[in-house]
Amino acid sequence: MGQTIAQKIIAAHLVDGKMEPGCEVGLRIDQTLTQDATGTMAYLEYEAMGIPRVRTELSVAYIDHNTLQSGFMNADDHRFIRTIAKKIGVRYSRPGNGICHQVHLERFAKPGKTLIGSDSHTPTAGGIGSLAMGAGGLDVAVAMGGGAYYIPYPKATLVKLSGALRPMVSAKDVILEVLRVMSVKGGVGKIVEYGGEGVKNLTVPQRATITNMGAELGATTSIFPSDEVTHAFLKAQGREEDYMPLAADADAVYDEVIEIDLSALEPLAACPHSPDNVKPVRSLSMTKVDQVCIGSCTNSSYADLMTVAEILKGKTVSPEVSLAIAPGSRQVLAMLSANGALTALLDAGARILESACGPCIGMGQSPNSAGVSLRTFNRNFEGRSGTRDAGVYLVSPETAAVSCLTGYITDPTSVPAAAPVAMPEAFPINDNMVDLPASEDEYESVEVLRGPNIKPLPVAQPLTDTMELPCLLKVGDNITTDHIMPAGSKILPYRSNIPHLANYCFEVCDPEFPARAMAAEGGFIVGGANYGQGSSREHAALVPLYLGIRAVVTVSFARIHKANLVNAGILPLEFENAADYEKISLGDTLELSGVIAGIENGAVTLTNKTTGCVIPLRCDISARQAQIIRAGGLLNYTREKNR
Amino acid sequence: MGQTIAQKIIAAHLVDGKMEPGCEVGLRIDQTLTQDATGTMAYLEYEAMGIPRVRTELSVAYIDHNTLQSGFMNADDHRFIRTIAKKIGVRYSRPGNGICHQVHLERFAKPGKTLIGSDSHTPTAGGIGSLAMGAGGLDVAVAMGGGAYYIPYPKATLVKLSGALRPMVSAKDVILEVLRVMSVKGGVGKIVEYGGEGVKNLTVPQRATITNMGAELGATTSIFPSDEVTHAFLKAQGREEDYMPLAADADAVYDEVIEIDLSALEPLAACPHSPDNVKPVRSLSMTKVDQVCIGSCTNSSYADLMTVAEILKGKTVSPEVSLAIAPGSRQVLAMLSANGALTALLDAGARILESACGPCIGMGQSPNSAGVSLRTFNRNFEGRSGTRDAGVYLVSPETAAVSCLTGYITDPTSVPAAAPVAMPEAFPINDNMVDLPASEDEYESVEVLRGPNIKPLPVAQPLTDTMELPCLLKVGDNITTDHIMPAGSKILPYRSNIPHLANYCFEVCDPEFPARAMAAEGGFIVGGANYGQGSSREHAALVPLYLGIRAVVTVSFARIHKANLVNAGILPLEFENAADYEKISLGDTLELSGVIAGIENGAVTLTNKTTGCVIPLRCDISARQAQIIRAGGLLNYTREKNR
Repeated sequence: MGQTIAQKIIAAHLVDGKMEPGCEVGLRIDQTLTQDATGTMAYLEYEAMGIPRVRTELSVAYIDHNTLQSGFMNADDHRFIRTIAKKIGVRYSRPGNGICHQVHLERFAKPGKTLIGSDSHTPTAGGIGSLAMGAGGLDVAVAMGGGAYYIPYPKATLVKLSGALRPMVSAKDVILEVLRVMSVKGGVGKIVEYGGEGVKNLTVPQRATITNMGAELGATTSIFPSDEVTHAFLKAQGREEDYMPLAADADAVYDEVIEIDLSALEPLAACPHSPDNVKPVRSLSMTKVDQVCIGSCTNSSYADLMTVAEILKGKTVSPEVSLAIAPGSRQVLAMLSANGALTALLDAGARILESACGPCIGMGQSPNSAGVSLRTFNRNFEGRSGTRDAGVYLVSPETAAVSCLTGYITDPTSVPAAAPVAMPEAFPINDNMVDLPASEDEYESVEVLRGPNIKPLPVAQPLTDTMELPCLLKVGDNITTDHIMPAGSKILPYRSNIPHLANYCFEVCDPEFPARAMAAEGGFIVGGANYGQGSSREHAALVPLYLGIRAVVTVSFARIHKANLVNAGILPLEFENAADYEKISLGDTLELSGVIAGIENGAVTLTNKTTGCVIPLRCDISARQAQIIRAGGLLNYTREKNR
Repeated sequence: MGQTIAQKIIAAHLVDGKMEPGCEVGLRIDQTLTQDATGTMAYLEYEAMGIPRVRTELSVAYIDHNTLQSGFMNADDHRFIRTIAKKIGVRYSRPGNGICHQVHLERFAKPGKTLIGSDSHTPTAGGIGSLAMGAGGLDVAVAMGGGAYYIPYPKATLVKLSGALRPMVSAKDVILEVLRVMSVKGGVGKIVEYGGEGVKNLTVPQRATITNMGAELGATTSIFPSDEVTHAFLKAQGREEDYMPLAADADAVYDEVIEIDLSALEPLAACPHSPDNVKPVRSLSMTKVDQVCIGSCTNSSYADLMTVAEILKGKTVSPEVSLAIAPGSRQVLAMLSANGALTALLDAGARILESACGPCIGMGQSPNSAGVSLRTFNRNFEGRSGTRDAGVYLVSPETAAVSCLTGYITDPTSVPAAAPVAMPEAFPINDNMVDLPASEDEYESVEVLRGPNIKPLPVAQPLTDTMELPCLLKVGDNITTDHIMPAGSKILPYRSNIPHLANYCFEVCDPEFPARAMAAEGGFIVGGANYGQGSSREHAALVPLYLGIRAVVTVSFARIHKANLVNAGILPLEFENAADYEKISLGDTLELSGVIAGIENGAVTLTNKTTGCVIPLRCDISARQAQIIRAGGLLNYTREKNR
């Protein structure tokens, strides 16, 4: 039976498990990347594993998230990442060099390779034919140390493209169409592959826009074939030797097929507050616009910004609109500067921000209250812009550029088309903002510099067969990781400081919880159904660990958070009978017994010492996860395996 | 007797008072400017005066301070300023167009004119021969309404320049030398004029660097002659018609003369934590540098950044240094972009920030903890960078550029000199980011848009002859306006929200004060000597007014804060006998009597109803100020006068 592109890469990297539905597969990881909001934690975790030098083919640490630097914490994180990267063998992309995914695509990503990154938009590199997945910081740390990355063996979806995009319709409209069809949950457990005759009409950066925002489908990742277009892009980046052709076999079997005729697409917008709330731009034409932001890892390539410059040339941004542009990389900005496009953007009245994630992650450029913001970004969740009542529309650069001139959401196909932008035959190459790590001879003498905000990692207690501890918190159904560990501009700069973050743990549910947990000597959390849904942040496990939580007992867990609990060394347990949830109250003394056997055979007994009730629990984890729990978390597990 | 430059401009604008030492003079104001951190309040104050359209020759509202926009407040302020500017006849310089002082110098400032601005670095325009002064928002509002601006008639200092600067020594080194000689208090009550043969060897932007940082002398302002150099600059900006020659008479008399031989100057640095802690750069050469920031209203002109580009061309910034550059204006950035200098800066590894104040006011780019930051800015107060334990050195662009390559503070005269930068014969003119106000026919229909953070101004109570109210706060000596009304990135976005700011009033002295004052129905503050020193912020008067403070009784006042209290309509009273300070305790009921007569004759009686003590007070204000107090503050006073 023929293989899909992803199946070929998985097969070539399989180190554990079987390529069968329902199985977990462990993959050898060729490349890793981190950004600075998750990087400090990932490198602290790597450091705790005790492996001197990374074992990947290439690992890169990017600085692109916390670049506003309001307070010393960010610069301290950058310095820590710079020095530890140098020591352990990781390249360091300095702040100002650009957004991790854009720079990685330009300079490092390779067809046929595996890549994991501690950022959910790592699938961007799928545009060049890399099997690229977002992962937790600890997963990245393990991969850097040579460990496998585990995923449930994915289903295969084919998006079959035909035709070619009309002028002023763009790659963003393709992925918005996919989101409209599949929804933000439609990709869960799947790898979305692109194929068909239409593929050859899309450039690598256009493909990367599509795979980037595939993250919004909930997919494991998205991937394009590697073909002559890929070849030309790599050659123009001076990386012809990184090229390899890659395509699905003619008889590859997909679980589902979606067909899209590129030539039939029209400009689309994801309306507030979800990336799959997609409508035609023409249907929104009476909407007054307060702000337009162009950039982010989704739409900040050379061709994207050249197109914007073509549209704005000789015109002036509406006085009632603030237009901010953050180029995706220094390479892009330098090209715009050299060829006059930047002058055109400035002349039109654009605000040029540093090459970084910026407003996409709520780092600045919050719109006015109740404002309408058109953004070429990938997420428009309520409040993500920093303005709770703003309405964010996700659109193409073409729609953004045309609308900032009119002051209203405007269909770009309703105005004369901008001249098409040709892909350059040679990009200007300058890697002097990517510092190389110390050599094998020198790395031992590199001093890792830490600031006062960078605190040690919490460490799991050894597993005991019996635990008698209080119920420190009881919460209801659908608790998100945002409930467990809130984010936002007030808290984000402290991502390397678990003790400080602990003060905000469950702040919205029970502000007394952190103090109660600190006063106790360990304890349990009891929750309802779908506990831990939402963002994959590992802090939602590490912070409870720091607060002494040994087990979380729920009606049911969200998948990723459950894995994060295991990785942190916290026992995830579920009620055998959901109704038993009622039999535990805050403050009750609970005894878990038969734990050592239970993580193998799946049954653990809880006795409520306060009421005398005996409650059967399930421990539904894989054999590998049982070993992780036993070792006291993934860090210790990896450390032991590497001994 | 001959006149100085300032005396000529004062004489031409005198509307009240005598040009004699010790007198207050009222000046007609030709131009005003505001920035966005003080602008919202200034326009609310203007609005409260009830004058439909401004009466100045030119008023401009700039957006340059709160451009990071972390939260909706900033964009709301921008929108409010944009719409009210349009309505009342003020030009609006959009965010991204640049720093107020740089743009004003390029496009609007004129020799021989008076200018006040709600920013302490307004004297920048003195470089072009404008009498330009920093002022409170209310002063600016009054001036926009056609009212006079009052200053104590200043003393005259002449800085006599000879020779010409050596290569790699620059205007920044001139003002640092002046600061070394005069100190940060040396300019109080003075206007500093520049003269001598050396003047002709300085360009207008160089002169502006010098008058800009004259603010750090505590001077009323600084000013240069207007000569052929000025003429050429104005011509290159397409403003030849704005030129007029201006020079001191040969027999002008100065109170003090300082002589500086430009050719003898060497590169200087203001060391932490004061602009007058000046040392030769060569004496600091073992100091390791973590960060270099280039920009601000002091050093971000075309020639400054071209010089930096010349030095960085073909080189790479040290991996251990973060180099951030914020161009002073869009004109500057567009020129660098068009001529390839920006490409050189990017190739060297510079981080390009938006054209705005940025890190100079602590808006981003905080250094790492205990970091060393070299900045071409004007202030290096402890903590101003956002990092409490950072050490900030103020240096020239030449010193900054050379040091970012070596990673250590480096004397730029120790390396080969960069090619000199010629002033352009014609700057590219594009004013499309300066929106013109509505016409006389249209302004009434302009809707002023407010956000939820923009709250109405507090209004003073009518003055009564007797007031019996509690002592709501008692504080000691040397209370600063930072004690009264703290600033910082947490509080600055709320500058238009007096009720919110009130929660932080005297936070460091007595956190219970705001609640106590809100619960009372008015009251008094009792303070020691030198009450209200430091920054001139008017919020330190407006917030107590909001909290119901009717009078402040102290041993003595700092001059500007006392004026701000009067302007707000709060009585400033001083103990006749300093020892009486001890006779009042927090919570005592105090009765002021004979107030109406007292503001004229200077004597008010305080009876401590709790203890029975009778305490004589002085009310040491001018006749004009007495009228202001009587009217319930400067706003009401101006409103009444305009009726």
